[in-house]
Amino acid sequence: MDDKNWMMEALKHLSRIGRTGQDGSNRLAFTKEDAEARAYFKGLMTESGLAVREDAFGNIIGRLEGSEPGLAAVATGSHLDTVPNGGHYDGMAGCAASLAAVRSLRRRGTLRRPLEVIVFQMEESSRFSLATFGSKVMAGKADLDLARRAKDKEGISLPDAMRAQGYDFEALPRAGRKKGELACFVEMHIEQSPILEEKGLPVGIVTAIAAPIRSRVEITGKASHSGSTVMNNRLDALVTAADLVLAVRAVGNRFSRREIVATVGNLVVRPGAMNVVPGGAELWIDLRGTSREAMDEAQAAILKAAEGLAAKHGMPVVFHPLGADDPVRMTPGIVDLMGEASRDLRIPSTPIVSGAGHDTMNMAALGEVGMIFVRNRDGLSHHHEEYAAPEDLMSGLDLLTETLYRLAMRAEGS
Amino acid sequence: MDDKNWMMEALKHLSRIGRTGQDGSNRLAFTKEDAEARAYFKGLMTESGLAVREDAFGNIIGRLEGSEPGLAAVATGSHLDTVPNGGHYDGMAGCAASLAAVRSLRRRGTLRRPLEVIVFQMEESSRFSLATFGSKVMAGKADLDLARRAKDKEGISLPDAMRAQGYDFEALPRAGRKKGELACFVEMHIEQSPILEEKGLPVGIVTAIAAPIRSRVEITGKASHSGSTVMNNRLDALVTAADLVLAVRAVGNRFSRREIVATVGNLVVRPGAMNVVPGGAELWIDLRGTSREAMDEAQAAILKAAEGLAAKHGMPVVFHPLGADDPVRMTPGIVDLMGEASRDLRIPSTPIVSGAGHDTMNMAALGEVGMIFVRNRDGLSHHHEEYAAPEDLMSGLDLLTETLYRLAMRAEGS
Repeated sequence: MDDKNWMMEALKHLSRIGRTGQDGSNRLAFTKEDAEARAYFKGLMTESGLAVREDAFGNIIGRLEGSEPGLAAVATGSHLDTVPNGGHYDGMAGCAASLAAVRSLRRRGTLRRPLEVIVFQMEESSRFSLATFGSKVMAGKADLDLARRAKDKEGISLPDAMRAQGYDFEALPRAGRKKGELACFVEMHIEQSPILEEKGLPVGIVTAIAAPIRSRVEITGKASHSGSTVMNNRLDALVTAADLVLAVRAVGNRFSRREIVATVGNLVVRPGAMNVVPGGAELWIDLRGTSREAMDEAQAAILKAAEGLAAKHGMPVVFHPLGADDPVRMTPGIVDLMGEASRDLRIPSTPIVSGAGHDTMNMAALGEVGMIFVRNRDGLSHHHEEYAAPEDLMSGLDLLTETLYRLAMRAEGS
Repeated sequence: MDDKNWMMEALKHLSRIGRTGQDGSNRLAFTKEDAEARAYFKGLMTESGLAVREDAFGNIIGRLEGSEPGLAAVATGSHLDTVPNGGHYDGMAGCAASLAAVRSLRRRGTLRRPLEVIVFQMEESSRFSLATFGSKVMAGKADLDLARRAKDKEGISLPDAMRAQGYDFEALPRAGRKKGELACFVEMHIEQSPILEEKGLPVGIVTAIAAPIRSRVEITGKASHSGSTVMNNRLDALVTAADLVLAVRAVGNRFSRREIVATVGNLVVRPGAMNVVPGGAELWIDLRGTSREAMDEAQAAILKAAEGLAAKHGMPVVFHPLGADDPVRMTPGIVDLMGEASRDLRIPSTPIVSGAGHDTMNMAALGEVGMIFVRNRDGLSHHHEEYAAPEDLMSGLDLLTETLYRLAMRAEGS
C-alpha cells in the first residue's frame, strides 16, 4: 500500500472510534474514546519507526532523528479530539497526513533535520471551553488558573478529567518546550469554509490565522405590557438590540476588504414572552481579523455605534469584553516555500486566510509556522457530514510531504 | 366600618391567601389556594345579603333582587385567580369593589333591577394558557375542544384539575347564560399601564379593549463558521430578524395614532453560539388595536415588510398565524353614563383604552359593557409589587357604585 492509501486507511480506522448513531464521532478530550484514538495512533507512530513520547498534558510527540544533530526539528501534526458528533476530517486528516508524510520521507533516506509528528490534546473547546489548549501548554501560553477552574457540563473539572486518564494537572508547566527545539511547525487541515470549493482548487496556502475580539453586550430597557404600553412610552431592549445587530453587520461589511468579519452569534431576550415588551437583551459579538490594527478600528466602530444607539433609544448598552487574541501571520518564508512546492508539484493552490483558530497559531511562539488547507465540501465542519474528497486529501499530503522535505533539508534557521 | 374601609379590609384578607415568600400570591385557577379565596368571598357575599350560586365552571354569582322582576340584571365583578407570585390588586380589587358597591346600594333601598356580583373563574392564562375562560364559558364563547386538551406544566389536564375541585368539564355547555338575563356588565380593574399615573388622574373610563393578532415567524438562513465565512457569503438569519424587529416597530409607530401597538416579544436564535453565523431565527409578534380595520392594515404592512426583507436578504421569512381576536368597544351609552357620573362626583377621569384583555370583552356578547380603570403605580401588574393607592381604589368604588345605581334605575333596555 502506498502512503496515500495508507493515510486513507488510517483515517477510515480513526472514523470508527467513538462512532455515534448519526455516523459522526464523539471523541471529546480526556474521554475513553479519545484515549482509544490516541492509543491507536501511537501504535501507528511506533510501527512507522518514530520514537514516541507524551508530555504532561498528553500531547503525543513522535520523532525521527535527522543526520545533523545540532539542527532544530521540523514538526507537523494536528489533533484527534472532536466536537460532539463531529466529522471525520477536522484534526484527523492532518494527523494521518503528517504521519503518512513522515513515512514517505523516511523511505527517501535520512534528512538533515529531525522530523516530529505532534498530536495535540484538546484542540476543540467543546468540553471545557478551552480551545487549542494542548498547543498552548506546549508553547507556554496556557492560562493555568483559568484551566484549573474549567468544568464540563457534568461538573467535572479539567484536573479531575486529566487525573481519570492518568495525567497530572500540576505537572503542566513542565510540558512547555524551549525555543530552539523546533525550527518550524506545519499543519494540514480541512478548510472549514467553502472558498477553495468556490474557486475550484484542491488546496490553499494559509497566509494568516484570524483572531477574535469577543464581547457580551447587555441592554437594559423596561419590561411592560405589550397591549397597554403605547409606542412612544416604550423602552424596548430588543429594538435597541436589533439596531445593534445591524450596526455590527454594517461594520463587518465596511471592513471586509481588510479581512474583517463581524457576527452577532446569539441574542437572548428577557423576559421573552409574547405579551411583554422586552425589558432586557443580551448579545454576543464575535469580531475577527488578520490584522490587530483593523480589528481595533472595527471594534471601535462597533462601540461608537453602540454608544449612539444607547443615546437614541435612551437605555444603557454595556459591553463586557470576553477576550481579544492577536491574529497570527504565517511565516512568509514558509508561505513562499509552499507556493513554490505547489507550482513544482503542479497542484493548483491559492493564498487563503483561516477564520478559525488552529494549534498552529500557538506554535508560532516556538518557531516558524505554515498551514495547508484542503478543499472541504460546502465548507461544512464540526458536523457529522463534514467531507473532503480523497484526491484533495492526497494533493494536500503531496504538498505537505514536499514542504516538510524542503524544510528538513534547510541548513539555515535555528 | 363604611363600605370603603370594608373593601380595603376584604382586599387585605384576600392578599393573605396563597401568600408567597416574596409577598405575592399564588392562586392559580383550580388550586386549593384559589378554592380558599373563593370560599372566603362566597362567605362575604352571603353575609352581604346576596343569594349565591356557582355555575358548572365555578363562576360565582351573587344576586340581589330588584323591585321590578321583569327587568334584566345589572352585573359587576372581576376575578380572584392570580398569575404565579402575582400582586394583590389585579382582579381582587374589582371583586372587592363590586361587593362593596352592592352592599352600599342595598342600604340605599331596593333598586328597580336585580344586581349581580360575578367572580369569574380562570381569568389568567398562567396555568392552562386559556385566558378569560370563565367569562367565555358564561358567554357561550369557549372553545371546549381546545380546553379539553389543555394541560398545565405538571401535565394535569383542565378536566382533571376541575374534577379535583369537584367540577365536571362535560357540564360546561350548561354554564352559558341566555341573552336577556343580563342588561349589562361593568368591571373595575387596575390599569396595568402608567397612563393615568402620567396624567395624574385617579380613574379612567375604558372606551375599548384592544385585541391581538399574533404571529410566530420563522426565518431560515444558513449556519456557518463565524470566522471563516466572509461577509458577502452569509445567510445570517439574525440580521434578517433584526430588520424585521425594526420593521414591526416602525409599523407600530406609524399606526399609533390609530391605537395600534406592535411588539416583538421574543426572538430565539439557532444555533445561538458565539462562533456560528445564525442559521435560523424565530420571533413572536403581538399586534394589538381597538379597530379590526386598523389592525388588519397594520398586519398587512408587517407582512409586506417581511416579504421585502425575505427578498433583500435572500432567505425565507414564514409567518405562522397564532390567532386573531376582535377588539371590543365599550357600549357608548355606558361610557357616557360613567363620564356624567364622574363629573357629578367630581372624580377627575379620562377616556382610556385597555391594551390587556378582560372578562368584560366576553360579557359584551350578553349585554352592554363598561369598565373603570384605577391608577396603578408604575403600570406594574402581574408582579408581586403591583400597587394601587387606597384613595384611588375608593374613587373607583365611588364611580362604580354610582354607575351601578344609575344602570339599575334605568327602565329601558332588556
